[in-house]
Amino acid sequence: MSVGLEQPKSLIKVEGIRLSACSAGIYNKKRDDLALIEIAKDSVIAAAFTKNNFCAAPVEISKSNLQKANPQYCLINAGNANAGTGRVGVLNSKAICKELAKKINCIEEEVLPFSTGVIGEDLPVKKINQAIPTLIKNLSENSWLDVSKAIMTTDTMPKAISSQIKIDDSMINITGITKGSGMIKPNMATMLSFIATDANVTKEILDKIKQNSLFKSFNRITVDGDTSTNDSFILIATCKSKLPLIDNEDSKAFTILENEITEVCKKLAQTIVRDGEGATKFISIQVDGGNKISECLSIAYKVAESPLVKTAFTASDPNWGRIIAAIGNAEISDLDTSKINIYINDVCIVGNGERSDTYTEEKGKKVMICDEIVLKIELNRGNYSEQIWTTDLSHEYIKINAEYRN
Amino acid sequence: MSVGLEQPKSLIKVEGIRLSACSAGIYNKKRDDLALIEIAKDSVIAAAFTKNNFCAAPVEISKSNLQKANPQYCLINAGNANAGTGRVGVLNSKAICKELAKKINCIEEEVLPFSTGVIGEDLPVKKINQAIPTLIKNLSENSWLDVSKAIMTTDTMPKAISSQIKIDDSMINITGITKGSGMIKPNMATMLSFIATDANVTKEILDKIKQNSLFKSFNRITVDGDTSTNDSFILIATCKSKLPLIDNEDSKAFTILENEITEVCKKLAQTIVRDGEGATKFISIQVDGGNKISECLSIAYKVAESPLVKTAFTASDPNWGRIIAAIGNAEISDLDTSKINIYINDVCIVGNGERSDTYTEEKGKKVMICDEIVLKIELNRGNYSEQIWTTDLSHEYIKINAEYRN
Repeated sequence: MSVGLEQPKSLIKVEGIRLSACSAGIYNKKRDDLALIEIAKDSVIAAAFTKNNFCAAPVEISKSNLQKANPQYCLINAGNANAGTGRVGVLNSKAICKELAKKINCIEEEVLPFSTGVIGEDLPVKKINQAIPTLIKNLSENSWLDVSKAIMTTDTMPKAISSQIKIDDSMINITGITKGSGMIKPNMATMLSFIATDANVTKEILDKIKQNSLFKSFNRITVDGDTSTNDSFILIATCKSKLPLIDNEDSKAFTILENEITEVCKKLAQTIVRDGEGATKFISIQVDGGNKISECLSIAYKVAESPLVKTAFTASDPNWGRIIAAIGNAEISDLDTSKINIYINDVCIVGNGERSDTYTEEKGKKVMICDEIVLKIELNRGNYSEQIWTTDLSHEYIKINAEYRN
Repeated sequence: MSVGLEQPKSLIKVEGIRLSACSAGIYNKKRDDLALIEIAKDSVIAAAFTKNNFCAAPVEISKSNLQKANPQYCLINAGNANAGTGRVGVLNSKAICKELAKKINCIEEEVLPFSTGVIGEDLPVKKINQAIPTLIKNLSENSWLDVSKAIMTTDTMPKAISSQIKIDDSMINITGITKGSGMIKPNMATMLSFIATDANVTKEILDKIKQNSLFKSFNRITVDGDTSTNDSFILIATCKSKLPLIDNEDSKAFTILENEITEVCKKLAQTIVRDGEGATKFISIQVDGGNKISECLSIAYKVAESPLVKTAFTASDPNWGRIIAAIGNAEISDLDTSKINIYINDVCIVGNGERSDTYTEEKGKKVMICDEIVLKIELNRGNYSEQIWTTDLSHEYIKINAEYRN
């Protein structure tokens, strides 16, 4: 199941990025499960990784390699997370980086490894190494879509988006891909996401854009509240565009580029939620009028992650009592519940902390049936607003996750 | 479904407590849904209530009445939580207290109201008031079991337990009942729980016992991480026993009584988990070797509330990668994952942060099939240990909660 998702089409090349995908036989069934992204020299890279204490071996190595060299390659496999694999896991990830470096004639630290899939199983190094020559041979500017397919796990659809913006008469290209549909509550990063632009920016500027974009996109989604061991977010600027270097946060060019990259990140992040395991609804939760960003987010996530709220959405049951119970669970100090209003789409459900005078069960049922739902919570105590995106919790979620390894 | 639960039998009377139950027609189907507990004068009472900001009207009133008078009656209804009902809800709860007070000749503030059931619907005051004479007429020392049945909602079985202990040749009786199976993560209290003893104690001593018992019992369970708007825990000492007054924490009698009440509370709390909505497994999560109580609990709850861990338990799939991912999500600072060992019952799954040398998938499957599972996590960094209890997450949970109001 997925909500409002379409096959991505017409992805735009980003000069300085070549990609390829192939099957290394990591999955039993025949499908692409290994991918390579080549990054032109002189590109600038910003990265963010999971904060899970049990971070995967490839995350450890990517973090470490980023300190040592300017990355030239991202080597990504699906079907095996190489997490919970201890020292052997680290050696295995290093072995495939080394093999790629040898074959392609770069240094090992210029390769960033990424893995996604089952946790706790050893990485099939031999299979991956055998497939590396094919990956190298097939590198092409046109393979974004192939790679977006190769990195899928329980995703039902590839996730990719392109965008073009004009800044001072120069056309800037942005293309991004992502994967993920379960174990989704990114913590400073998402499952796997690779976004490239040909814009010409400094490292400091790209880091700033990364931070701001993540804050409003991948760090605002939850499917099941579980943060993956392998979350990684890579933002690449190949600097191939003719537009002069952006090196100042106060410039108009910075603002335009940041907004556009944020939009791309938001849409990509939302594709993950739309494809959330078992999802039958795409739910935007907006909390307005909070005293702090953190209290808006705390309430939004309590509602988004309440199994009772999620199952009510699955059943299209306007059981709004569960929503107020979840809001109350955030335990915000001095929250005056009698000031709270709640809307589902255009229907006011709760006014001043109790059932709205204008609310009828019939109106509630009518909006709860929708695939796309905006749940707006007005706290009326401050000036902060936050929005996050989530899914419902269906039988299909249980089915997918009970049968995941079979 | 429920795990290892049996119909309670042979409950022991507690001198000074009389009870009754009847149908007030709050549920469409014929069943008892209203109950009364009469507390002898000179009893001592300790109470704890939900910390949910949206606490229900009866919780508000019970808290306020406890400040004003020594309670003589608990008036409890199932089928309607009287939560999210604003000012009208408060008036409604007051109206039924007033009616009982009038009929029984006590003051309104000597009645504590309790409600459980659907949130957001108005309390059927008329139906309840009409049933009050029957409740009064039927008061009896022998009706503990009837009351435990009348307060059920999605519970599949009544939950009650009795215990007798000898202190200095005097026999002390303890009987307790509870209800709850969903929206369960008590926060300083449980769903509804009424426990009485004939022991003779001061108010200070009873408060102390309440605090310590709750800490080790009802505050150590989670079914779905949702805290109810109506959680209430009432501990009554009728002081009818011949044993001299316990007024000192350092006395042997205090220790014996506190231990026994804690045991009763633990068993009652565990019945809630055993009857957790859709539960097919009863899971004890023990975290040993933490630096602080809070970090043990944080890890325990992250594991207990991870939908991915819970569905793996449902499927009896030893997908231990999900357990380590959940541990990592607690984001404990400086957690050295390479020191962590994990056991499921007697099988060592993870040793030093990676798959144990002695572990095989076969061994994992064999223990995951069990109904009762102890998941032990050794952090090896300190001297604190904590244990909590939870369930799996099954198709039945979704079914129950998608159909709850139908």
